[in-house]
This record gives sequence, C-alpha cells and structure tokens, in this order.
Amino acid sequence: MGFLSILGQTHKLIQERVKQGDIVIDATVGNGNDTLFLKKLVGDNGVVCGFDVQITAIENTVKRFSDAGISLEHVHLIKNSHDKMLEVLPPSMHEKVSAIMFNLGYLPGGDHKKITQQETTIRALQHSLLFLEKDGIITIVVYSGHPGGKKEADAVLTWVQNLPQQYYQVLSYQFLNQKNNPPFLIAILKR
Amino acid sequence: MGFLSILGQTHKLIQERVKQGDIVIDATVGNGNDTLFLKKLVGDNGVVCGFDVQITAIENTVKRFSDAGISLEHVHLIKNSHDKMLEVLPPSMHEKVSAIMFNLGYLPGGDHKKITQQETTIRALQHSLLFLEKDGIITIVVYSGHPGGKKEADAVLTWVQNLPQQYYQVLSYQFLNQKNNPPFLIAILKR
Repeated sequence: MGFLSILGQTHKLIQERVKQGDIVIDATVGNGNDTLFLKKLVGDNGVVCGFDVQITAIENTVKRFSDAGISLEHVHLIKNSHDKMLEVLPPSMHEKVSAIMFNLGYLPGGDHKKITQQETTIRALQHSLLFLEKDGIITIVVYSGHPGGKKEADAVLTWVQNLPQQYYQVLSYQFLNQKNNPPFLIAILKR
Repeated sequence: MGFLSILGQTHKLIQERVKQGDIVIDATVGNGNDTLFLKKLVGDNGVVCGFDVQITAIENTVKRFSDAGISLEHVHLIKNSHDKMLEVLPPSMHEKVSAIMFNLGYLPGGDHKKITQQETTIRALQHSLLFLEKDGIITIVVYSGHPGGKKEADAVLTWVQNLPQQYYQVLSYQFLNQKNNPPFLIAILKR
C-alpha cells in the first residue's frame, strides 16, 4: 500500500473536519473537482463558495455538477479573484467557515499563462484566516514547476512559517524524491 | 481535532503496514518505546531486533517491557551501532523486514553528548534498504536542534532525495511554524 497521494491526503484532512451543513470555500475552482468534493461533504444544506478569475473554470464546474447529477443549490460560483473574498463574501461568514481549499498554479487543461500570482495569493490566504472557524482547515496544494511557481511557493512557505504557533498548526506533506517539482501540500488548522 | 503529531503519524504509517508474525527492526532503541510498540504489532511469533550503542538504552528497554508485562521472547536487543546491522543480522533477513524505525538525535533523558552521527546514520540507512521487503517501510524521526543535528538532517535529506523514484516512495511530514527545530518525519516505502 503506497503512501496517500497529495490529493488523497488533502481530501482526507478535509473529510475528517467538514460535516453536513457546513460553509466552505473553494478558493481556486479550476475544473470544479474540489468544488464538487466539498459540496458532497456539506450536503443539501451546506454552502460552497467558489472563486475563479476564468469564466472557463466556472463553466467547466457547472458542467461537472450537471454530469455528476449534483444540484448547484447553495453553490455560489464567483467569477472573481480569491483575493476579493473579503469584499465579496458577507461579514456574517467571518469565523464560520470550516474549510478553504487552494490549488496554486494554473488551471489544468487551461491557459498556462493564467497562473495564480504571489501578491494576490498571499492576500487571499491572509483574508481566508478571517473566515476560518475554530478547528477549521485551509489546504494549499502548491504546484511550482511553471515560471514564477518557485517564487510563489517560497512566498507561501515564508508566510505560513510566520503564522503564530499558539493560534495555527501548520503541516507540510511532501514527496522528497520525485523529479520535476511535484506538487506539495500545506495545511493550516485554526486552534 | 489537531493534526496527528510526528509520533502519531509515524506510528500510524507503521501500524498500517506491520502485521502479526512480521520481522521488524528498531534501529535506535532509546527508552524502548518504539521497541515495545513494534513488539505489540508483531505479536508472540513476530521478531523485533533493536540496536543501541548505550547500555542504558538496553537496560531501560528491558525494564519497559517488564513494566508493560510483555515478554522479551523473539526480541533481540543488540548493544551495538545500527550501522553494524549488516554484520550482526543474518542474510536470511535480507528483504524480509516489514518496518525499520530510526530516531535521530540523542537518547531522551540520557547523555546529550551521545548523539547519532551523520556517517553512521547514512550507512545504517543504506544498509536498512537491504533488509526491507516489498511494501516495507522505514521511518526516520529527525531531531535537529542539538549541535551537529542540522548537518545530520541535511545529510539525511540529501540521501533520501536521491533514492530512485521507481523503487522507493519518500514522504516528509513536518510542522512548519514551530520554533526551536521541532522533529520531523521522513518515511520511505519500498515499491
């Protein structure tokens, strides 16, 4: 039995902490895989807010839900940058969100020039903390193989290393002997 | 629910892969905690070989088993360096061991001058690979806060990063925002 993959470990950490009726955020909708995963966890009465700057991502996700036969009720797909979540989401959601998922890099199968950027990523992560409830989790899967990816990864690592230990637990889960900059996982838990 | 601690994650990865009757190695017996943990997993018919250069470690472990009411039958406590395992253990054990546990650093509560050393550590790790069966696991908990600890940790990281991906999966599990060089886990799985 191999070790859990980055995706497997990410979903496991989320699954252990998200329950029916929860409010959650997919900060990088992409092809909607995590959005759908989250919706299944929170169920009919749960709320999923999904951000993506690319209309393709939103369209793919609508199709993804339709193909899976899952209703988009209480799924809010927001065509905007995740660094606007503080402006877009209501203050009533502050400290009420049990999970926030980030995939940093580019939309798989999409335009590789449209990548997440260091400044907006760090701002989005910083603002995410305001939405997180006690025992809530942020997962960040970092792809760093593309141009600028290493710089963004380093910025994220520096940012998480400075999160105060008394309020946040920060875990990394990573494969060490894979070539070509494989993705790695950072998970933040609010105490 | 917090993330699994380094010890918790180490034991989880071992537990998922070691079964009754297995042959296992505790490469750094220390106070015998992992030795006892392993013995409970392999049971009456399983074999545990434990290495430690310090007689205190061996004595503590004998007492630890006695206190726990667990028999030392099929538990071989070897007062020698783990880098001698190739000489000490029989060739019949090659590719027959399902788990090998290392704790790098010093014996908790013991002489802090007696630390594991880069050269013997790497040799012991290299030789461990010969004993590991398919799907077998090596766990390495790295304490690096003591003098020389950082150098040893770097040597281990370089060594694992160069293990061929087609034969070994190498995972790291680490907390990123803790002060004072907390321990981290490296786990190697033989494919």
